[in-house]
Amino acid sequence: MDNPRESFSALEENRVSSMDKSVGELASLVGGVVVGDPSVRITGLNGIQQAQRGELTFVGNRRYLPYLGTTAASAVLVAPDAGATGRTLIEVKNPYLAFVRVLQEYAANTPIPHPTGIHETVVVGRNVSLGQNVALDAHVRIADNCVVGDNVVLYAGVYVGDSSCIGNDTVIYPNVSIRERIWIGARCIIHAGVVIGSDGFGFAPVNGTWFKVPQVGTIRIGDDVEIGANTAIDRATFGTTIIGSGTKIDNLVQIGHNVEIGEHCVISGMTGVAGSTRIGCHVTIAAQVGIADHVEIGDNVTIAGRSGVTRAIASGQIVSGFPAIDHETDKRVVAGLRRLPELPRRVRELERRIQKLEEELHGKAANHRD
Amino acid sequence: MDNPRESFSALEENRVSSMDKSVGELASLVGGVVVGDPSVRITGLNGIQQAQRGELTFVGNRRYLPYLGTTAASAVLVAPDAGATGRTLIEVKNPYLAFVRVLQEYAANTPIPHPTGIHETVVVGRNVSLGQNVALDAHVRIADNCVVGDNVVLYAGVYVGDSSCIGNDTVIYPNVSIRERIWIGARCIIHAGVVIGSDGFGFAPVNGTWFKVPQVGTIRIGDDVEIGANTAIDRATFGTTIIGSGTKIDNLVQIGHNVEIGEHCVISGMTGVAGSTRIGCHVTIAAQVGIADHVEIGDNVTIAGRSGVTRAIASGQIVSGFPAIDHETDKRVVAGLRRLPELPRRVRELERRIQKLEEELHGKAANHRD
Amino acid sequence: MDNPRESFSALEENRVSSMDKSVGELASLVGGVVVGDPSVRITGLNGIQQAQRGELTFVGNRRYLPYLGTTAASAVLVAPDAGATGRTLIEVKNPYLAFVRVLQEYAANTPIPHPTGIHETVVVGRNVSLGQNVALDAHVRIADNCVVGDNVVLYAGVYVGDSSCIGNDTVIYPNVSIRERIWIGARCIIHAGVVIGSDGFGFAPVNGTWFKVPQVGTIRIGDDVEIGANTAIDRATFGTTIIGSGTKIDNLVQIGHNVEIGEHCVISGMTGVAGSTRIGCHVTIAAQVGIADHVEIGDNVTIAGRSGVTRAIASGQIVSGFPAIDHETDKRVVAGLRRLPELPRRVRELERRIQKLEEELHGKAANHRD
Repeated sequence: MDNPRESFSALEENRVSSMDKSVGELASLVGGVVVGDPSVRITGLNGIQQAQRGELTFVGNRRYLPYLGTTAASAVLVAPDAGATGRTLIEVKNPYLAFVRVLQEYAANTPIPHPTGIHETVVVGRNVSLGQNVALDAHVRIADNCVVGDNVVLYAGVYVGDSSCIGNDTVIYPNVSIRERIWIGARCIIHAGVVIGSDGFGFAPVNGTWFKVPQVGTIRIGDDVEIGANTAIDRATFGTTIIGSGTKIDNLVQIGHNVEIGEHCVISGMTGVAGSTRIGCHVTIAAQVGIADHVEIGDNVTIAGRSGVTRAIASGQIVSGFPAIDHETDKRVVAGLRRLPELPRRVRELERRIQKLEEELHGKAANHRD
Repeated sequence: MDNPRESFSALEENRVSSMDKSVGELASLVGGVVVGDPSVRITGLNGIQQAQRGELTFVGNRRYLPYLGTTAASAVLVAPDAGATGRTLIEVKNPYLAFVRVLQEYAANTPIPHPTGIHETVVVGRNVSLGQNVALDAHVRIADNCVVGDNVVLYAGVYVGDSSCIGNDTVIYPNVSIRERIWIGARCIIHAGVVIGSDGFGFAPVNGTWFKVPQVGTIRIGDDVEIGANTAIDRATFGTTIIGSGTKIDNLVQIGHNVEIGEHCVISGMTGVAGSTRIGCHVTIAAQVGIADHVEIGDNVTIAGRSGVTRAIASGQIVSGFPAIDHETDKRVVAGLRRLPELPRRVRELERRIQKLEEELHGKAANHRD
Repeated sequence: MDNPRESFSALEENRVSSMDKSVGELASLVGGVVVGDPSVRITGLNGIQQAQRGELTFVGNRRYLPYLGTTAASAVLVAPDAGATGRTLIEVKNPYLAFVRVLQEYAANTPIPHPTGIHETVVVGRNVSLGQNVALDAHVRIADNCVVGDNVVLYAGVYVGDSSCIGNDTVIYPNVSIRERIWIGARCIIHAGVVIGSDGFGFAPVNGTWFKVPQVGTIRIGDDVEIGANTAIDRATFGTTIIGSGTKIDNLVQIGHNVEIGEHCVISGMTGVAGSTRIGCHVTIAAQVGIADHVEIGDNVTIAGRSGVTRAIASGQIVSGFPAIDHETDKRVVAGLRRLPELPRRVRELERRIQKLEEELHGKAANHRD
């Protein structure tokens, strides 16, 4: 075909134009106050730098205030004390949360087209219990003895191993692999390509070769957990790898065997947590962090991006660097690094000057003795 | 079976021997000059350390010149001024490009055995438009409302979500997952296990739990883009995540929501680009780099391996380190690090000597006052 | 359903209780000596912090000795010289290996429920040779000309490309993608989501765009190799990417084109090895390491976690840091970093004091001249 996108664009435009509200209507929705013309029509949402005419945007951070003068957006959500002028504004206490609220309204107009029903190519094993209203897309494979809750959605190519259990309302995207004897809670979202229940990485050295330690444990994932694309979570050697309820994990993360993660944590992309490490609740881990094995991390800890954690972190600490230390101390280390190239030169210069002084002084001392 | 490889080896050898050209023929192909016997037969290609009798190799970098004396290769592509002797040589201005040219000839004899036709196990939704000569291998799943261009090849287990669009001549390898409303250009190559269109990682804190910010945006991937195995690209929160035409992305890379990458960039393996960051054109990013969110990177920037980029980089800059700084400055920092262990000792020694001098001098000063 | 887990828990408990041995029986199994009551029943295994009543645990490392006082385990494997008391003990020379031995016994009671037979949804190409007792689960796709050895198990959604070969007794978990002309040895374990044979990342710059270097090589994986979930191994540009027998690779690892890895290496999670690098035998690489391209690494090398290797490493070396250097030297660099924030201040203070001394001394020197 000449240009597949053209036929597609018509489709897409049709879809996106399904939202059309006035600034006044949106202000009511978020409990905000209109400054300017409340009849302006809003048909989409966007970031302040990308927004076009007809779109709503927001300023959630003073850093973005200067863009108020240049954005093409037709209206802007701002805090009342932001000092914004010359635009159609909706003033609201927390512009970001208000934007999320409008996004939800918009999302309701752009629902995810989940598959429905049980496709005829699905292969389900013996002794499997399927809940009400389960959706199984093409080429799903569920092994024997599984339990699948109500309203569960499994996209194409999902594999669920023997005796595994998936809680009510959980959605699992395409080509996810769940091994045997894994428990997954309710209302979880598991993105495409995720692997849950692969063998932990355990080998004992025997005469110069590596003897595989059997990985007979399992994994228990709580409710309301989200797991990002192509993330891998290993089953326990024995016992259970645990992901607490409400915890959100980003793409390409690795969770080792027997790791235990508490509730309501956030683990950003490409982070690795090595075996048997225990992480508390409400812990925030930025991207590309590494955490060594058998480490204890308390509650409400924050770990900055690219940190390498090698030892225990007490509750409430903020750490960064490798090896990770208190963030304020690490900032001074990093600042010191900037001055590092000049230090050897300065020390060498001091050594020269002091040498000179010592010679002068000892020369004089000798004179005095005369 | 006793040894599966033996039956296989026969097959393989049969295939590899399908290239057989003389050094003279290859010299004509690359516009080079033969030094030695042009009738020598060449049946394969290899690196200078791995090459066997009958194979052609090349020296593209002076670092490899010493191997000219030891390689078993039957002929070598070299630059005319390389000072090479004692071998059957093909002298050519750019030996690497000449080698690639011969590789192409060889590749034409080793075509990738793409699937053809539409397999009976393929499941295609309603209102899907398939171009001419489309190849869909076993267990492919295409959801409703998709547009698939001419000559597109989808390998086994590929999933294409609702209302997505794939441009002409694009090849998608096995078990790739493409979510709904994604646009992919022409002549793209998407390697196995890639995920395109997973939800961005966006959560708003509400009373100690994480509220999911709907991810209703999409992704637009240009023409001639290549994406490496098990890479994950997140859809925009709203608006569009963009990968510019001609950009090449390696394996296990993460691209966050609302990231915009320009044309003809190269992004090496295991690199992560966090949300809303904008990267210009002709940018080269080495392996295991991390780039923070909301960062602006200009055109023609080079980012060294394992760098951590935390702030804007102007066009044309070369940066390295974490936090990434000008590469020349960073090299001095790294050199300084090597001398770091000795510095505290030298400073301590200076403090001792100056203390002694001060005591001596003040003692003397006191004497003088007498 | 009200709670899918409840119906599942009954199943699970039934399964786990299938091990029940006395401390005396287990002591015989591992060649140990019972201190205490040999009739105590053991129905499970666990780590010393997680173990419950009825479970066996072990102390393999003195660091865990303090937990002997608090563990709920019913018996503990310990070294005879550990000084442990007040518990039912099994004294044995190597408690960790003894624990693995019991784990194996336990594993024999918890076998992995591999699929069996050839499912009717499997699609096998022409000229494919299948060994005896091969198990192919639902939606497996094997392309033309493949050779699959005896007792091979391919889980659901596995793809095997044209002319590839899989050795006897190898197990490949769900949604693994193996491209064309790949050789895999006997008794390998390949975890879910792995990609073997994706194109190497090779592009030549031509007039501001990137020209794809054909990747016509292959991969040879030895016997007894294990490859972790979502790992990606690229085929050679030409020639062969090699993984030696007995080598174990963890999750989310990237192996570049033309890499050669020796036998019995261990490569931990999220490590990347760039193109054409050669690694010897018995090399241990910890997690999140990066190794640059065209680097030579000897035998018996150890590379610490998060190291970045940029140049050759001789056999037997232990390295760490980025750029990776001798581990002992690196430890001094890291220790120096801790003192870095105070150094500029101390140097500045020295400069001030020496300035003062110089003024005093030269003032005096001038006086003397009077």
